[in-house]
Amino acid sequence: MTAHIINIGDELLIGQVVNTNASWMAEELNKRNIKVTNISVISDGGDDIRTQLERSLSEADVVLITGGLGPTKDDITKSVLCEFFGDTLVRHQQTYDNVKKFFERRGLPFTAINQAQALVPSKCKVLVNEVGTAPCMVFTMPQVETQYIASLQTEAKPFEKIVISMPGVPFEMKWLMQNSVLPLLQERLGGEAIVHKTILTFGIGESFLADKIADWEDALSAHIKLAYLPEAGKVRLRLSAYGVDHTELEREVAEQIVKLNAIISDNIYGYDDETISMAIGKLLKQQGAMVATAESCSGGLVARRITEAAGASDYFKGGVVAYSNEIKMKALGVNPDTLERYGAVSEQTAKEMALGCLNMMDADYAIATTGIAGPTGATETKPLGLVYIAIASHNEVVCNRYVFTTTREQHQERTANQALFDLYKLVQSRKS
Amino acid sequence: MTAHIINIGDELLIGQVVNTNASWMAEELNKRNIKVTNISVISDGGDDIRTQLERSLSEADVVLITGGLGPTKDDITKSVLCEFFGDTLVRHQQTYDNVKKFFERRGLPFTAINQAQALVPSKCKVLVNEVGTAPCMVFTMPQVETQYIASLQTEAKPFEKIVISMPGVPFEMKWLMQNSVLPLLQERLGGEAIVHKTILTFGIGESFLADKIADWEDALSAHIKLAYLPEAGKVRLRLSAYGVDHTELEREVAEQIVKLNAIISDNIYGYDDETISMAIGKLLKQQGAMVATAESCSGGLVARRITEAAGASDYFKGGVVAYSNEIKMKALGVNPDTLERYGAVSEQTAKEMALGCLNMMDADYAIATTGIAGPTGATETKPLGLVYIAIASHNEVVCNRYVFTTTREQHQERTANQALFDLYKLVQSRKS
Repeated sequence: MTAHIINIGDELLIGQVVNTNASWMAEELNKRNIKVTNISVISDGGDDIRTQLERSLSEADVVLITGGLGPTKDDITKSVLCEFFGDTLVRHQQTYDNVKKFFERRGLPFTAINQAQALVPSKCKVLVNEVGTAPCMVFTMPQVETQYIASLQTEAKPFEKIVISMPGVPFEMKWLMQNSVLPLLQERLGGEAIVHKTILTFGIGESFLADKIADWEDALSAHIKLAYLPEAGKVRLRLSAYGVDHTELEREVAEQIVKLNAIISDNIYGYDDETISMAIGKLLKQQGAMVATAESCSGGLVARRITEAAGASDYFKGGVVAYSNEIKMKALGVNPDTLERYGAVSEQTAKEMALGCLNMMDADYAIATTGIAGPTGATETKPLGLVYIAIASHNEVVCNRYVFTTTREQHQERTANQALFDLYKLVQSRKS
Repeated sequence: MTAHIINIGDELLIGQVVNTNASWMAEELNKRNIKVTNISVISDGGDDIRTQLERSLSEADVVLITGGLGPTKDDITKSVLCEFFGDTLVRHQQTYDNVKKFFERRGLPFTAINQAQALVPSKCKVLVNEVGTAPCMVFTMPQVETQYIASLQTEAKPFEKIVISMPGVPFEMKWLMQNSVLPLLQERLGGEAIVHKTILTFGIGESFLADKIADWEDALSAHIKLAYLPEAGKVRLRLSAYGVDHTELEREVAEQIVKLNAIISDNIYGYDDETISMAIGKLLKQQGAMVATAESCSGGLVARRITEAAGASDYFKGGVVAYSNEIKMKALGVNPDTLERYGAVSEQTAKEMALGCLNMMDADYAIATTGIAGPTGATETKPLGLVYIAIASHNEVVCNRYVFTTTREQHQERTANQALFDLYKLVQSRKS
């Protein structure tokens, strides 16, 4: 099965928004053995939508469209699709009720312009959007009768061609893909079984990891594929097994993961959609331990990451964003002499921040960050991007030094990632 | 002048890499009045490259291609282009010397495979790549003679069509664009002018905003286009004016913005690339005021947002992530009775958090969040998604109640956005 992705939106064509929808969709489709052969970004103009739709229908089995489904005048995807498929708009009651509830819950009036969100082409199948107001529309070829599409039917196609239109808001698109679109596509795939398992590693670069697991990789059966997916500070390894017997594939993949664990268990923090925050949470709960944070350069991002995991209140006490020296002293008890002698960005300050946080919060672990995110603040001995990450526990305080030479925003990201990895490693070492 | 961007690479089609090249290129082109009408991601297969190239040449004046220029077997862009334009490969001496130096500097052998990087189609113009080994190639239509291209020449085109092929490595592409490609395109530009201005609004949903400014929108001249770009809690409005006189277009856009301000000034916080954090920072600096944060459900994200802006230390003292009740009492001085009687998620608690934070941090403004991010924690009287946002200042403490019914992650985003908007509004009201 092949797919085209069409992302509609002028904001993408003028570079105002990065097309993260396309990469997310492509990855999810790829995992299900649906090959994306083209991604096209086009304007929200009628001609462009029609032309691209014709092209994609002539080349792919599935056409996934995002964007242009809002209630305002520049959102024309729905009317273009309706016209393209020679259809008329009718009210979809379930969507109407859903949109109505959506506005009621927010105490907002249900205006005519918003009621129009519940209008859909009569021949499409509607997948209700429970997290927004724009419904997802599925057009299956035999239901439509334009001359162009009739001509397609003369060729022998392995699947009915389908066109699926979704909103462009990332979380709405993702919700619809996960809850409705991907299951629908999978159903059409028929007999083929695919099993994926992603192994999440940290603390080892892609090429070194590849070297370390080369023998294991070489010994994999031909129907099991391995992909390296590197990101800042971590590498995801995705195993994909293709065959007919789902249970057997799962058994084979599980077997390979046991073997892989024997080689790189120190670098594995989780599987599939787990986050490092969830992995930390699991360990802390096992130990009945509480963690707290004391952040300077990461500005609250470590705390934010920890609290992203549901149930974080079971193991997260709280944190201090000690951005100014005044707060480092007042809220964390950092010694003024330490700040004076070694500076705010130093091993000594990081350690005192962590220890002060541990005591103030009465926690079992405390993690502290202090660094130079830029663009200013560098000195001769302290380069831009320098970070100290300290972790205090009842037994000790350790501190690591890093230099992340990137933009300010990336610096905060890298610091938070590294802080979480450092914390994970330490908490894990206390496991037994 | 219109442009198509073609990004070649399987890593983009399987979703392993987000296509940041396209958005960066589109933004740079757009700034120079070159309108990107299509972005296509295609595989590194010969047929796909040829087909897309023909399409783009029939629709755009400029075709910018990235990717597929490496020395390995799966990089075939150069040979496909050479064949497409009926040309043969010859050595480009300056590139040869450049690549040779490149390998010498790194102490690496200059192998045959790397020498091949200096081969280019004889009729193309080469833009030397000083930061990598793949040269940038410019094909101008009258220099080439395939039948397909000859047919294009019969139409009256405002510009010679050109195809430019660049490497896909982001920093090489950027270097080539900035140093050679953009200056070359700018030289070719004729009379057409485009002016963009983005108006950043908050506190009003897309459909209500559309209703409110409907008369203004309807009165816009035909050559001025309006786009709604909604994001969590805010809507960006982009005005795009097309014409021949850049100064006149700028005047017209400015005039429209004055008119728009008369209708929705309360909802406008900035323009173009400004963030709400930058807008807050500007106001606080004008007032010589300091802000501090006390977060429960937003888990540090408000502080993170404030510190995203460079120079935040001028107006941000610090924050407390008071996730547990214990920390709410200990670090912020929230009264145990308040927590007992009204609960952690209540107006009373939010206000005490803000006031406690104001005093503890000795700040001029303090912002507090407390809510139910989910998936658990809802009660009969307190629904999932409930949030209280309180802001304390020397004169008063105000508190707003919101319900954001989304995922946990989105809840934190919405809460942080709303908190920043509430803060902006209050700080702005103290302006005079």
